[in-house]
Amino acid sequence: MDYSSKVLAKAVEEISGLPGIGKKSALRLALHLLRQPESQAIALANALKNLVTEIRYCRECHNFSDDEICDICADSTRNDEILCIVEDVRDVMAIENTNKFRGKYLVLGGKISPMEGIGPNQLHISAIERKLNTKVVKELVFALSATMEGDTTAYYIYKRFKDFGVKFSTIARGISIGDELEYADEISLGKSIQNRIPYNEAG
Amino acid sequence: MDYSSKVLAKAVEEISGLPGIGKKSALRLALHLLRQPESQAIALANALKNLVTEIRYCRECHNFSDDEICDICADSTRNDEILCIVEDVRDVMAIENTNKFRGKYLVLGGKISPMEGIGPNQLHISAIERKLNTKVVKELVFALSATMEGDTTAYYIYKRFKDFGVKFSTIARGISIGDELEYADEISLGKSIQNRIPYNEAG
Repeated sequence: MDYSSKVLAKAVEEISGLPGIGKKSALRLALHLLRQPESQAIALANALKNLVTEIRYCRECHNFSDDEICDICADSTRNDEILCIVEDVRDVMAIENTNKFRGKYLVLGGKISPMEGIGPNQLHISAIERKLNTKVVKELVFALSATMEGDTTAYYIYKRFKDFGVKFSTIARGISIGDELEYADEISLGKSIQNRIPYNEAG
Repeated sequence: MDYSSKVLAKAVEEISGLPGIGKKSALRLALHLLRQPESQAIALANALKNLVTEIRYCRECHNFSDDEICDICADSTRNDEILCIVEDVRDVMAIENTNKFRGKYLVLGGKISPMEGIGPNQLHISAIERKLNTKVVKELVFALSATMEGDTTAYYIYKRFKDFGVKFSTIARGISIGDELEYADEISLGKSIQNRIPYNEAG
Protein backbone atom coordinates (compact mmCIF):
# COMPACT_ATOMS: atom_id res chain seq x y z
CA MET A 1 0.00 0.00 0.00
CA ASP A 2 1.31 3.42 -0.98
CA TYR A 3 0.27 6.01 1.61
CA SER A 4 1.63 8.97 -0.43
CA SER A 5 2.94 10.53 2.79
CA LYS A 6 5.79 9.33 4.96
CA VAL A 7 4.28 10.65 8.18
CA LEU A 8 1.05 8.79 7.41
CA ALA A 9 2.94 5.61 6.52
CA LYS A 10 4.93 5.86 9.76
CA ALA A 11 1.79 6.42 11.84
CA VAL A 12 0.07 3.42 10.20
CA GLU A 13 3.13 1.28 10.84
CA GLU A 14 3.32 2.22 14.52
CA ILE A 15 -0.43 1.90 15.16
CA SER A 16 -0.55 -1.51 13.48
CA GLY A 17 2.18 -2.67 15.89
CA LEU A 18 -0.52 -2.80 18.56
CA PRO A 19 -2.14 -6.20 19.14
CA GLY A 20 -5.35 -6.85 17.20
CA ILE A 21 -4.92 -3.81 14.92
CA GLY A 22 -4.07 -4.53 11.30
CA LYS A 23 -2.92 -2.12 8.58
CA LYS A 24 -6.47 -1.30 7.47
CA SER A 25 -7.68 -0.47 10.98
CA ALA A 26 -4.50 1.50 11.62
CA LEU A 27 -5.13 3.58 8.49
CA ARG A 28 -8.74 4.12 9.55
CA LEU A 29 -7.57 5.35 12.98
CA ALA A 30 -4.90 7.61 11.46
CA LEU A 31 -7.41 9.18 9.05
CA HIS A 32 -9.84 9.61 11.94
CA LEU A 33 -7.20 11.55 13.90
CA LEU A 34 -6.55 13.75 10.86
CA ARG A 35 -10.23 14.68 10.74
CA GLN A 36 -10.27 15.66 14.44
CA PRO A 37 -8.77 18.80 15.97
CA GLU A 38 -4.98 18.46 16.15
CA SER A 39 -5.20 18.63 19.95
CA GLN A 40 -6.82 15.19 20.18
CA ALA A 41 -3.90 13.34 18.59
CA ILE A 42 -1.44 15.37 20.64
CA ALA A 43 -3.28 14.55 23.87
CA LEU A 44 -3.22 10.86 22.90
CA ALA A 45 0.49 11.02 22.05
CA ASN A 46 1.29 12.71 25.37
CA ALA A 47 -0.81 10.23 27.34
CA LEU A 48 1.06 7.30 25.75
CA LYS A 49 4.45 8.85 26.40
CA ASN A 50 3.55 9.66 30.01
CA LEU A 51 2.17 6.17 30.49
CA VAL A 52 5.45 4.43 29.81
CA THR A 53 7.76 7.04 31.27
CA GLU A 54 5.87 7.92 34.46
CA ILE A 55 4.15 4.74 35.55
CA ARG A 56 5.44 3.28 38.81
CA TYR A 57 4.77 0.14 40.73
CA CYS A 58 3.73 0.10 44.39
CA ARG A 59 6.65 -0.95 46.57
CA GLU A 60 4.30 -3.01 48.75
CA CYS A 61 1.97 -4.83 46.36
CA HIS A 62 3.49 -4.30 42.87
CA ASN A 63 0.25 -2.82 41.59
CA PHE A 64 0.46 0.25 39.32
CA SER A 65 0.82 3.41 41.33
CA ASP A 66 1.45 7.12 40.93
CA ASP A 67 3.45 7.18 44.14
CA GLU A 68 5.80 4.85 45.94
CA ILE A 69 2.84 3.27 47.77
CA CYS A 70 -0.43 2.76 45.87
CA ASP A 71 -3.79 4.11 47.02
CA ILE A 72 -4.98 0.67 48.11
CA CYS A 73 -1.92 -0.06 50.26
CA ALA A 74 -2.05 3.45 51.69
CA ASP A 75 -5.75 3.16 52.59
CA SER A 76 -5.86 2.69 56.37
CA THR A 77 -9.57 1.77 56.31
CA ARG A 78 -8.73 -1.48 54.51
CA ASN A 79 -8.06 -4.72 56.33
CA ASP A 80 -4.32 -5.45 56.54
CA GLU A 81 -4.98 -8.95 57.81
CA ILE A 82 -6.26 -10.35 54.50
CA LEU A 83 -3.84 -10.50 51.58
CA CYS A 84 -5.24 -11.39 48.18
CA ILE A 85 -2.70 -12.96 45.80
CA VAL A 86 -3.35 -12.14 42.14
CA GLU A 87 -1.38 -12.72 38.96
CA ASP A 88 -1.83 -9.40 37.26
CA VAL A 89 -2.78 -5.76 37.81
CA ARG A 90 -5.89 -6.38 35.75
CA ASP A 91 -7.06 -8.84 38.39
CA VAL A 92 -6.79 -6.12 41.05
CA MET A 93 -9.00 -3.88 38.90
CA ALA A 94 -11.48 -6.69 38.31
CA ILE A 95 -11.79 -7.52 42.03
CA GLU A 96 -11.94 -3.84 43.02
CA ASN A 97 -14.74 -3.46 40.55
CA THR A 98 -16.87 -5.97 42.47
CA ASN A 99 -16.70 -3.83 45.67
CA LYS A 100 -16.66 -7.11 47.65
CA PHE A 101 -13.11 -7.09 48.98
CA ARG A 102 -11.65 -4.66 51.50
CA GLY A 103 -8.31 -6.36 52.20
CA LYS A 104 -4.97 -5.72 50.50
CA TYR A 105 -3.40 -7.23 47.39
CA LEU A 106 -0.15 -8.67 46.22
CA VAL A 107 0.46 -8.78 42.46
CA LEU A 108 2.70 -11.73 41.52
CA GLY A 109 3.36 -10.45 38.01
CA GLY A 110 2.51 -13.80 36.41
CA LYS A 111 2.08 -17.43 37.31
CA ILE A 112 4.44 -20.38 37.46
CA SER A 113 4.56 -21.83 33.96
CA PRO A 114 7.33 -24.29 33.07
CA MET A 115 6.06 -24.21 29.48
CA GLU A 116 6.82 -20.48 29.23
CA GLY A 117 9.95 -20.76 31.37
CA ILE A 118 8.45 -18.76 34.26
CA GLY A 119 9.56 -20.06 37.65
CA PRO A 120 8.88 -18.77 41.19
CA ASN A 121 11.93 -16.52 41.06
CA GLN A 122 10.43 -14.38 38.32
CA LEU A 123 7.36 -13.69 40.48
CA HIS A 124 7.04 -11.40 43.50
CA ILE A 125 6.90 -14.29 45.94
CA SER A 126 9.53 -12.87 48.29
CA ALA A 127 7.17 -9.91 48.72
CA ILE A 128 4.67 -12.34 50.27
CA GLU A 129 7.35 -13.47 52.70
CA ARG A 130 8.10 -9.87 53.68
CA LYS A 131 4.39 -9.32 54.29
CA LEU A 132 4.10 -12.49 56.40
CA ASN A 133 7.17 -11.56 58.42
CA THR A 134 5.40 -8.42 59.63
CA LYS A 135 2.97 -10.78 61.44
CA VAL A 136 0.03 -8.58 60.44
CA VAL A 137 -1.38 -10.84 57.74
CA LYS A 138 -3.70 -13.61 59.02
CA GLU A 139 -5.13 -14.94 55.74
CA LEU A 140 -3.80 -15.44 52.23
CA VAL A 141 -6.56 -15.52 49.59
CA PHE A 142 -5.61 -17.04 46.25
CA ALA A 143 -7.43 -15.29 43.41
CA LEU A 144 -5.63 -17.08 40.58
CA SER A 145 -6.70 -18.45 37.22
CA ALA A 146 -8.61 -21.75 37.29
CA THR A 147 -5.87 -23.34 35.19
CA MET A 148 -3.02 -25.76 35.71
CA GLU A 149 -0.60 -22.82 36.05
CA GLY A 150 -2.83 -21.03 38.54
CA ASP A 151 -3.20 -24.19 40.61
CA THR A 152 0.55 -24.84 40.50
CA THR A 153 1.28 -21.29 41.64
CA ALA A 154 -1.17 -21.55 44.55
CA TYR A 155 0.27 -24.92 45.58
CA TYR A 156 3.84 -23.59 45.47
CA ILE A 157 2.96 -20.61 47.64
CA TYR A 158 1.00 -22.81 50.04
CA LYS A 159 3.91 -25.27 50.42
CA ARG A 160 6.40 -22.47 50.95
CA PHE A 161 4.42 -20.56 53.58
CA LYS A 162 2.26 -23.21 55.24
CA ASP A 163 4.31 -23.07 58.43
CA PHE A 164 3.88 -19.31 58.86
CA GLY A 165 0.65 -19.87 60.82
CA VAL A 166 -1.71 -18.08 58.45
CA LYS A 167 -5.01 -19.28 57.00
CA PHE A 168 -5.11 -20.07 53.27
CA SER A 169 -8.23 -19.67 51.16
CA THR A 170 -9.09 -19.50 47.50
CA ILE A 171 -11.86 -17.84 45.56
CA ALA A 172 -14.82 -20.18 45.00
CA ARG A 173 -15.00 -22.22 41.80
CA GLY A 174 -18.46 -22.97 40.56
CA ILE A 175 -21.12 -22.20 38.01
CA SER A 176 -20.94 -18.60 36.78
CA ILE A 177 -23.99 -16.42 37.07
CA GLY A 178 -26.03 -16.79 33.90
CA ASP A 179 -24.59 -20.20 32.98
CA GLU A 180 -26.96 -23.03 32.15
CA LEU A 181 -26.25 -26.18 34.13
CA GLU A 182 -26.37 -28.55 31.19
CA TYR A 183 -23.56 -26.70 29.44
CA ALA A 184 -21.30 -26.35 32.50
CA ASP A 185 -18.08 -28.36 32.45
CA GLU A 186 -18.06 -31.31 34.85
CA ILE A 187 -15.15 -30.10 36.98
CA SER A 188 -16.81 -26.77 37.77
CA LEU A 189 -20.12 -28.54 38.39
CA GLY A 190 -18.44 -31.14 40.62
CA LYS A 191 -16.66 -28.45 42.64
CA SER A 192 -19.85 -26.43 42.94
CA ILE A 193 -21.67 -29.44 44.48
CA GLN A 194 -18.81 -30.36 46.80
CA ASN A 195 -18.47 -26.79 48.01
CA ARG A 196 -22.17 -26.03 48.20
CA ILE A 197 -23.10 -23.05 50.36
CA PRO A 198 -26.09 -22.38 52.64
CA TYR A 199 -29.05 -21.08 50.65
CA ASN A 200 -30.59 -17.80 51.67
CA GLU A 201 -33.29 -15.67 50.20
CA ALA A 202 -30.96 -12.85 49.19
CA GLY A 203 -29.15 -15.22 46.84
CA MET B 1 -13.17 1.23 36.94
CA ASP B 2 -10.34 2.25 39.24
CA TYR B 3 -7.03 2.14 37.38
CA SER B 4 -4.93 2.86 40.52
CA SER B 5 -2.71 5.16 38.45
CA LYS B 6 -3.57 8.51 36.94
CA VAL B 7 -1.23 8.08 33.96
CA LEU B 8 -2.86 4.74 33.17
CA ALA B 9 -6.35 6.20 33.56
CA LYS B 10 -5.43 9.09 31.26
CA ALA B 11 -3.95 6.74 28.63
CA VAL B 12 -7.07 4.55 28.71
CA GLU B 13 -9.27 7.62 28.38
CA GLU B 14 -7.35 8.94 25.37
CA ILE B 15 -7.06 5.58 23.60
CA SER B 16 -10.77 4.86 24.07
CA GLY B 17 -11.49 8.17 22.30
CA LEU B 18 -10.56 6.41 19.06
CA PRO B 19 -13.45 4.97 17.03
CA GLY B 20 -14.25 1.32 17.69
CA ILE B 21 -12.05 1.09 20.80
CA GLY B 22 -13.86 0.76 24.12
CA LYS B 23 -12.47 1.09 27.64
CA LYS B 24 -11.61 -2.62 27.88
CA SER B 25 -9.68 -2.68 24.60
CA ALA B 26 -7.99 0.58 25.54
CA LEU B 27 -6.83 -0.92 28.83
CA ARG B 28 -5.58 -4.02 27.01
CA LEU B 29 -3.58 -1.83 24.59
CA ALA B 30 -2.16 0.30 27.43
CA LEU B 31 -1.07 -2.80 29.38
CA HIS B 32 0.44 -4.21 26.19
CA LEU B 33 2.54 -1.05 25.76
CA LEU B 34 3.70 -1.32 29.37
CA ARG B 35 4.98 -4.84 28.73
CA GLN B 36 6.96 -3.72 25.65
CA PRO B 37 10.21 -1.75 25.66
CA GLU B 38 9.51 1.90 26.47
CA SER B 39 10.77 2.87 23.00
CA GLN B 40 7.74 1.31 21.28
CA ALA B 41 5.20 3.55 22.99
CA ILE B 42 7.42 6.58 22.45
CA ALA B 43 7.77 5.80 18.74
CA LEU B 44 3.99 5.47 18.51
CA ALA B 45 3.47 8.74 20.38
CA ASN B 46 5.93 10.57 18.11
CA ALA B 47 4.37 9.12 14.97
CA LEU B 48 0.92 10.33 16.05
CA LYS B 49 2.20 13.80 16.90
CA ASN B 50 4.10 14.06 13.61
CA LEU B 51 1.07 12.80 11.71
CA VAL B 52 -1.15 15.69 12.73
CA THR B 53 1.48 18.41 12.85
CA GLU B 54 3.45 17.60 9.70
CA ILE B 55 0.92 16.19 7.25
CA ARG B 56 0.35 18.37 4.21
CA TYR B 57 -2.02 18.25 1.30
CA CYS B 58 -0.87 18.34 -2.31
CA ARG B 59 -1.57 21.79 -3.82
CA GLU B 60 -2.63 20.14 -7.09
CA CYS B 61 -4.80 17.16 -6.14
CA HIS B 62 -5.46 17.57 -2.36
CA ASN B 63 -4.06 14.12 -1.66
CA PHE B 64 -1.83 13.70 1.40
CA SER B 65 1.71 14.70 0.66
CA ASP B 66 5.05 15.29 2.34
CA ASP B 67 5.83 18.16 -0.03
CA GLU B 68 3.86 20.89 -1.71
CA ILE B 69 3.21 18.58 -4.68
CA CYS B 70 2.53 14.89 -4.03
CA ASP B 71 4.54 12.06 -5.59
CA ILE B 72 1.72 11.18 -8.00
CA CYS B 73 1.29 14.74 -9.32
CA ALA B 74 5.07 15.11 -9.58
CA ASP B 75 5.46 11.86 -11.52
CA SER B 76 6.09 12.90 -15.14
CA THR B 77 5.61 9.32 -16.41
CA ARG B 78 1.92 9.50 -15.54
CA ASN B 79 -0.71 10.63 -18.00
CA ASP B 80 -1.77 14.23 -17.34
CA GLU B 81 -4.66 13.93 -19.78
CA ILE B 82 -6.79 11.68 -17.57
CA LEU B 83 -8.04 13.10 -14.27
CA CYS B 84 -9.71 10.72 -11.85
CA ILE B 85 -12.16 12.40 -9.45
CA VAL B 86 -12.38 10.67 -6.05
CA GLU B 87 -14.04 11.58 -2.78
CA ASP B 88 -11.33 10.68 -0.35
CA VAL B 89 -7.60 10.03 0.01
CA ARG B 90 -8.43 6.40 0.82
CA ASP B 91 -9.89 6.07 -2.67
CA VAL B 92 -6.57 7.18 -4.19
CA MET B 93 -4.80 4.47 -2.19
CA ALA B 94 -7.37 1.86 -3.21
CA ILE B 95 -7.05 2.68 -6.92
CA GLU B 96 -3.25 2.93 -6.74
CA ASN B 97 -3.29 -0.51 -5.16
CA THR B 98 -4.89 -1.99 -8.28
CA ASN B 99 -1.95 -0.82 -10.50
CA LYS B 100 -4.52 -0.25 -13.28
CA PHE B 101 -4.51 3.53 -13.48
CA ARG B 102 -1.64 5.74 -14.60
CA GLY B 103 -3.42 9.09 -14.82
CA LYS B 104 -3.68 11.77 -12.15
CA TYR B 105 -6.18 12.31 -9.33
CA LEU B 106 -8.25 15.01 -7.78
CA VAL B 107 -9.50 14.46 -4.24
CA LEU B 108 -12.82 16.25 -3.65
CA GLY B 109 -12.70 15.85 0.13
CA GLY B 110 -16.23 14.46 0.32
CA LYS B 111 -19.40 14.26 -1.72
CA ILE B 112 -22.42 16.51 -2.10
CA SER B 113 -24.81 15.54 0.66
CA PRO B 114 -27.71 17.84 1.51
CA MET B 115 -28.51 15.54 4.46
CA GLU B 116 -25.12 16.27 6.03
CA GLY B 117 -25.12 19.88 4.88
CA ILE B 118 -22.25 19.38 2.43
CA GLY B 119 -22.61 21.45 -0.72
CA PRO B 120 -20.32 21.90 -3.75
CA ASN B 121 -18.55 24.82 -2.06
CA GLN B 122 -17.12 22.60 0.66
CA LEU B 123 -15.52 20.34 -1.97
CA HIS B 124 -12.44 21.00 -4.11
CA ILE B 125 -14.47 21.54 -7.26
CA SER B 126 -12.73 24.78 -8.20
CA ALA B 127 -9.52 22.73 -8.35
CA ILE B 128 -11.11 20.77 -11.23
CA GLU B 129 -11.80 24.05 -12.99
CA ARG B 130 -8.17 25.14 -12.57
CA LYS B 131 -7.06 21.80 -14.03
CA LEU B 132 -9.44 22.10 -17.01
CA ASN B 133 -8.31 25.66 -17.69
CA THR B 134 -4.79 24.41 -18.33
CA LYS B 135 -6.26 22.60 -21.39
CA VAL B 136 -4.11 19.52 -20.65
CA VAL B 137 -6.89 17.30 -19.27
CA LYS B 138 -8.88 15.44 -21.93
CA GLU B 139 -10.94 13.05 -19.77
CA LEU B 140 -12.56 13.24 -16.34
CA VAL B 141 -13.10 9.81 -14.76
CA PHE B 142 -15.60 9.67 -11.92
CA ALA B 143 -14.55 7.10 -9.32
CA LEU B 144 -17.26 7.94 -6.80
CA SER B 145 -19.42 5.87 -4.46
CA ALA B 146 -22.32 4.01 -6.08
CA THR B 147 -24.75 5.94 -3.89
CA MET B 148 -27.20 8.77 -4.28
CA GLU B 149 -24.59 11.24 -3.02
CA GLY B 150 -21.93 9.89 -5.36
CA ASP B 151 -24.28 10.13 -8.33
CA THR B 152 -25.36 13.66 -7.35
CA THR B 153 -21.74 14.77 -7.09
CA ALA B 154 -20.88 13.30 -10.51
CA TYR B 155 -23.95 14.92 -12.05
CA TYR B 156 -23.11 18.32 -10.53
CA ILE B 157 -19.54 18.19 -11.85
CA TYR B 158 -20.74 17.01 -15.27
CA LYS B 159 -23.28 19.85 -15.53
CA ARG B 160 -20.75 22.46 -14.45
CA PHE B 161 -17.96 21.38 -16.82
CA LYS B 162 -19.76 19.76 -19.75
CA ASP B 163 -18.95 22.70 -22.02
CA PHE B 164 -15.21 22.49 -21.40
CA GLY B 165 -14.79 20.03 -24.26
CA VAL B 166 -13.53 17.07 -22.22
CA LYS B 167 -14.72 13.46 -22.20
CA PHE B 168 -16.55 12.22 -19.09
CA SER B 169 -16.40 8.61 -17.94
CA THR B 170 -17.22 6.69 -14.80
CA ILE B 171 -15.87 3.48 -13.31
CA ALA B 172 -17.92 0.45 -14.37
CA ARG B 173 -20.76 -0.74 -12.15
CA GLY B 174 -21.45 -4.45 -12.22
CA ILE B 175 -21.16 -7.72 -10.41
CA SER B 176 -18.11 -7.84 -8.13
CA ILE B 177 -15.60 -10.65 -8.60
CA GLY B 178 -16.67 -13.56 -6.39
CA ASP B 179 -20.33 -12.50 -6.19
CA GLU B 180 -23.01 -15.07 -6.96
CA LEU B 181 -25.50 -13.84 -9.51
CA GLU B 182 -28.60 -14.88 -7.62
CA TYR B 183 -27.64 -12.68 -4.66
CA ALA B 184 -26.66 -9.62 -6.72
CA ASP B 185 -28.92 -6.58 -6.39
CA GLU B 186 -31.05 -5.90 -9.45
CA ILE B 187 -29.61 -2.47 -10.23
CA SER B 188 -26.03 -3.77 -10.41
CA LEU B 189 -27.18 -6.76 -12.42
CA GLY B 190 -29.16 -4.54 -14.78
CA LYS B 191 -26.22 -2.19 -15.29
CA SER B 192 -23.88 -5.13 -15.86
CA ILE B 193 -26.08 -6.46 -18.66
CA GLN B 194 -26.61 -3.04 -20.26
CA ASN B 195 -22.88 -2.33 -20.18
CA ARG B 196 -21.72 -5.79 -21.16
CA ILE B 197 -18.17 -6.03 -22.48
CA PRO B 198 -16.54 -8.20 -25.16
CA TYR B 199 -15.58 -11.60 -23.78
CA ASN B 200 -12.00 -12.72 -24.10
CA GLU B 201 -10.11 -15.70 -22.85
CA ALA B 202 -7.94 -13.73 -20.42
CA GLY B 203 -11.08 -12.76 -18.46
